[in-house]
Amino acid sequence: MSKKQTVRGVSLLRVAVLGGGGWGTALSCLLARKGHAVSLWARRPEHVAALVRERENRRYLPGVFLPEGVNPTNSLKDALAGAAVVVFAVPSHAFREVLRTALPLIPASACVVNVAKGLEEETLLRLSEVYGAEAGEEALARYAVLSGPSHAEEVGRDQPTAVVAAAPRYQTAEFVQELFMGPFFRVYTNDDLVGVELGGALKNIIALGTGICEGIGFGDNAKAALITRGLAEITRLGVRLGANPLTFAGLTGLGDLVVTCTSMHSRNRRAGIEIGRGKTLDAALAAVGMVVEGVRTTRAAHTLARELNVAMPVTAETYRVLFEGLSPLEAARNLMGRARTREIEEVCRIKATWTVRPDAPGGGVEK
Amino acid sequence: MSKKQTVRGVSLLRVAVLGGGGWGTALSCLLARKGHAVSLWARRPEHVAALVRERENRRYLPGVFLPEGVNPTNSLKDALAGAAVVVFAVPSHAFREVLRTALPLIPASACVVNVAKGLEEETLLRLSEVYGAEAGEEALARYAVLSGPSHAEEVGRDQPTAVVAAAPRYQTAEFVQELFMGPFFRVYTNDDLVGVELGGALKNIIALGTGICEGIGFGDNAKAALITRGLAEITRLGVRLGANPLTFAGLTGLGDLVVTCTSMHSRNRRAGIEIGRGKTLDAALAAVGMVVEGVRTTRAAHTLARELNVAMPVTAETYRVLFEGLSPLEAARNLMGRARTREIEEVCRIKATWTVRPDAPGGGVEK
Repeated sequence: MSKKQTVRGVSLLRVAVLGGGGWGTALSCLLARKGHAVSLWARRPEHVAALVRERENRRYLPGVFLPEGVNPTNSLKDALAGAAVVVFAVPSHAFREVLRTALPLIPASACVVNVAKGLEEETLLRLSEVYGAEAGEEALARYAVLSGPSHAEEVGRDQPTAVVAAAPRYQTAEFVQELFMGPFFRVYTNDDLVGVELGGALKNIIALGTGICEGIGFGDNAKAALITRGLAEITRLGVRLGANPLTFAGLTGLGDLVVTCTSMHSRNRRAGIEIGRGKTLDAALAAVGMVVEGVRTTRAAHTLARELNVAMPVTAETYRVLFEGLSPLEAARNLMGRARTREIEEVCRIKATWTVRPDAPGGGVEK
Repeated sequence: MSKKQTVRGVSLLRVAVLGGGGWGTALSCLLARKGHAVSLWARRPEHVAALVRERENRRYLPGVFLPEGVNPTNSLKDALAGAAVVVFAVPSHAFREVLRTALPLIPASACVVNVAKGLEEETLLRLSEVYGAEAGEEALARYAVLSGPSHAEEVGRDQPTAVVAAAPRYQTAEFVQELFMGPFFRVYTNDDLVGVELGGALKNIIALGTGICEGIGFGDNAKAALITRGLAEITRLGVRLGANPLTFAGLTGLGDLVVTCTSMHSRNRRAGIEIGRGKTLDAALAAVGMVVEGVRTTRAAHTLARELNVAMPVTAETYRVLFEGLSPLEAARNLMGRARTREIEEVCRIKATWTVRPDAPGGGVEK
């Protein structure tokens, strides 16, 4: 291929991308354009056959043609054989199952990159915790996540995008940064894995709440207030769970929240709008017709917040609207009518307890 | 008036609002609905005559009728006589001039609230510094600012809105919080006056940059990245100037930025879009036809950043596009092609040097 070129610091690699949705396909294209040899694994044979025949993912990423370096396959064994990097691009609810099937086939030295956002439904575990439980704690040294505001349709078309790589071992995040970085795809590292994982999951609560607010018919002021105060409270919960508050002001928190709250691609926002207009939760979910992760995340965060005694008023009112029949307008009144307070609360105190990871050289100072 | 009611903690007051634009008018209505007696001063006699005749500000806030408690006047002396509160709602570039005229007429015990955003053009002073220079440092004990994401059209229509009051003396911020707070208008206090003032001014740089990015034709990923990384760099500058980084993640930073970057009401965004499409700065300003504050703020921040050695790449590239003829696409390439880096930079270190104001009871803990 004339397109092949040397990637500074990372030689050309065999990469297995697991998951033939829009995001897995877009990342496969990105890596193949950098010269890597990509096996794109999808579960359904007819989907793979279509990818091979059409050199395009017409269902999930129409209009983006697959470079020659992308090899669609239905065989997990073929995809993983000799892979130096394995990218998990399956929905969070499918992660543990696919991981269990794939684990015996993943080369021991391979780097594993997870691009799914969300918590495991029943256990409320972050996906890195799921990985550690399945693959063993020592395997986390080669595990990383890639997260941030990134519509697949835009990445597939080389529209400028910036995301974050985080990992239990900082050097793994730097490897992933180098692997994916390109002229249209900028990757930052962040040594706060907990914050990066939580931000991607918890932001969906606020997307739901913002949708409800829009569905009522409220304006830009209310939306901006809900985004800001919502981010403040998911930051509070995140900090209590060990995250750095500044991570939530970054690409995987604020950035992803802004994209989610302003895009009609967001199922969470769309479900919220239906509820704000008066639909029940079930009717709203039926109207959206797909999994709306924020619903389960709202329940989980509401439970956690009560257990940990963290104030999360937006989450609590969203929970009551979703599960206890509170009217959206009443919920808005409750939020507006809370006792007067300060803008910067306990987060301000707690941040002092967060410390830079000992294995993170440079201690958070920009290079 | 049957609408009069007692406001808990604040008795009914005489308030002078200086400035007959949309924001001054909306705040006059809000205070009058709470039962206060409001004099709304505007400079032009014909504008005042129209307000009196039509009981509506058709030019700047059409469709919102003035409650009986609002008394439009052309006389600064009448407006200020016996005022317990004086609200400055004039553009930042007119602040010093109106202040000089008004000062001899303002009762010594009056509380002064400034709702203008921006820095003074030539001196780069924050407006509280201008006030201190004109009224004397001791007068700052009765000075406060009110800022945040607040389109006047929505506040005038009682759409839910949340803003922040900040002051050199914390008790003054609490007084202003109580004065303005209502069922549709939520006021938080923040003891970081520097951060609140800087956020309102610096966000316009990012609004310009985001507009340019849109004008080029880039998508949601790029916009979210620019908002997030832009907020990170104005936070860096703010922290260097003495602000609390968390203020920039609040209503007067992030919240106001989100409103500005997604609303077509924003002149900064509109000017940016014209420039991104290929217009020169002069042509873009002519197309917008009004003052675009972000242009001057970009120049000021770029100068400050170089003097203080603060990395502000988005500001620097925006500056080059505005003043040095760099093409928007080239600026985007420069931003995407920067050396790889970490997401959380020096801010992380600097935050430890920020301390809670000694006169702020509660030390930043939510009540």
